[in-house]
Amino acid sequence: MDIALIGFGSVGKGVVQVFSKKQNQLRQKYDLSFSFKGIFTSRGAFLDSNGLDLQSILNIKDLTAHSSWKNGLSFMESIDDLDVDLVIEVTPTNIEHGEPGKSHIISSIKKGCDVVTANKGPLVVAFDELAELCRRGGCILRYEGSVGGGLPVFNLVRETLQGNTIHSLRGILNGTSNFILTQMTYERTSFESALKTAQELGYAEADPAADVEGTDAASKTVILANGLFGMNKGIDDVYIQGITKVTPEAIELAGNENFLIKHIASIEDGQIEVAPRLIQKTSPLAVDGTLNVVSLQTDLAKEITIIGQGAGGEETASAILSDVVDIHLTRKAK
Amino acid sequence: MDIALIGFGSVGKGVVQVFSKKQNQLRQKYDLSFSFKGIFTSRGAFLDSNGLDLQSILNIKDLTAHSSWKNGLSFMESIDDLDVDLVIEVTPTNIEHGEPGKSHIISSIKKGCDVVTANKGPLVVAFDELAELCRRGGCILRYEGSVGGGLPVFNLVRETLQGNTIHSLRGILNGTSNFILTQMTYERTSFESALKTAQELGYAEADPAADVEGTDAASKTVILANGLFGMNKGIDDVYIQGITKVTPEAIELAGNENFLIKHIASIEDGQIEVAPRLIQKTSPLAVDGTLNVVSLQTDLAKEITIIGQGAGGEETASAILSDVVDIHLTRKAK
Repeated sequence: MDIALIGFGSVGKGVVQVFSKKQNQLRQKYDLSFSFKGIFTSRGAFLDSNGLDLQSILNIKDLTAHSSWKNGLSFMESIDDLDVDLVIEVTPTNIEHGEPGKSHIISSIKKGCDVVTANKGPLVVAFDELAELCRRGGCILRYEGSVGGGLPVFNLVRETLQGNTIHSLRGILNGTSNFILTQMTYERTSFESALKTAQELGYAEADPAADVEGTDAASKTVILANGLFGMNKGIDDVYIQGITKVTPEAIELAGNENFLIKHIASIEDGQIEVAPRLIQKTSPLAVDGTLNVVSLQTDLAKEITIIGQGAGGEETASAILSDVVDIHLTRKAK
Repeated sequence: MDIALIGFGSVGKGVVQVFSKKQNQLRQKYDLSFSFKGIFTSRGAFLDSNGLDLQSILNIKDLTAHSSWKNGLSFMESIDDLDVDLVIEVTPTNIEHGEPGKSHIISSIKKGCDVVTANKGPLVVAFDELAELCRRGGCILRYEGSVGGGLPVFNLVRETLQGNTIHSLRGILNGTSNFILTQMTYERTSFESALKTAQELGYAEADPAADVEGTDAASKTVILANGLFGMNKGIDDVYIQGITKVTPEAIELAGNENFLIKHIASIEDGQIEVAPRLIQKTSPLAVDGTLNVVSLQTDLAKEITIIGQGAGGEETASAILSDVVDIHLTRKAK
């Protein structure tokens, strides 16, 4: 399997690390041999038609000093000459226009490549278009890492709950806002103070809007609605309420009645929303810190809940690896 | 796919209901058509080489009045004449000698059939023997329903965490003992009183020993150790401590420090045990009532926790259905 990787931030680096580390295991267990022919960063690319030496790329401090480095070269300039089977797209997300990921994915599918992505933007703005392109081109698009980091949701439903009908979903899809609410609950601090702690610990960015105002969780909810429930939703279809107005007093009142206030994403009866909600302390949804959780109401297995780290380079790379192995096995079976 | 079902208790009836209900969906979504050629109960069998009418079997009150009924006929007497691809084994479990399930499964594999079971006994007493028979005969043995009812564990690891190494596991694998501890925690009652409530509600059997003394959870832990970690363990390798000596006073003391007492199964550093343990109230393992939970420590995805109903006819049938679909797709790919 010849692979191109687009994006070399924490997830992209995680992908290179994980694939490098698991090379032997993937060959032995799944008969999967791979080589990375191109790795595209924001400043240029590593290119080698014989396959890049991943370890040397991980070890080098000055990327431009690497023998395979092409300064300023972009994926879109290179795609015509790239001979790869699969493209991993993990550039920074933009949920308004989906670029540059959307163009990367569309070009890859049009070239006949399978695509694995953790990039929410293209899936939020163009889910149906991408799915239709794949159908026409016989390509496979997988996106387990786009929701909940290393926590499996799409693969969980497709591969372990076959035959089940999923009636509804509730979950916590943003680790930063969950961390802030957890701080406010146990340290009895204000939103502002908890946010500051989250920023100091590196859980929240300097501009925390997407996390605390709910648009990040809403993007993931859109992908779940389209990917799991076969809907055709956009971000404007989500009722979104952030956590910025949650007060320690409200949390304490809830606590007195054995409830927590959590930032809950839900898909139910065709309605999708992300908003602060009361959750019983004993509920499987009552997970703390930066954890993510997804709870599915199904007809046969009843309620199935999965909890895990919703972010992190290696965790997200784990989801990407799972998708790549699955595509490899699907292709091999054909 | 021609199927024989052995066992017609709550799980067996669940299997018939679920397969009957999902017939069209399985055909459309997975190109899976099936017919049940034999259903074996403790008193006799339904046999029809053209395929049994499942709905008529579910509806009939007096089994012996059904046109396909063969009084007293057993699976072992019938196997030579049965023309089936797959055997579903869900007879009552015996963890000392594994019978009658063990003989059913061995005979089925020797005949070249794939096997799906939720029966712990044969897996506890003869895991390696069954695995070896399958390897030699090219058969597939699946047992998702043997641990945690409808909650996927084996399929979760195999199908959604590819490439991950599982370091250790902790979980709650018996809904009855979890219900009793939950009652003792929130109602501040004694073990005896909580057990009585569990019996009145139908969660505990008249003889609750296997549940409250931990042998049921220990059996499941053995299957997890062998199936997930590649060990070769028997029930005697498990350190087992029941919940009969847990007192409301101990639970209250733990609660004052924000801990719960839970009946925890664990596999760590080659050691397997089932015993009452302190669990932080905020831990993903802190699930209440009859819920089961399994938490896996993995190298890439980190801690992944799955929660669900650990028992119930339809829930267990859901796991069996998932196994059957997976076998169908594996066979189709070859």
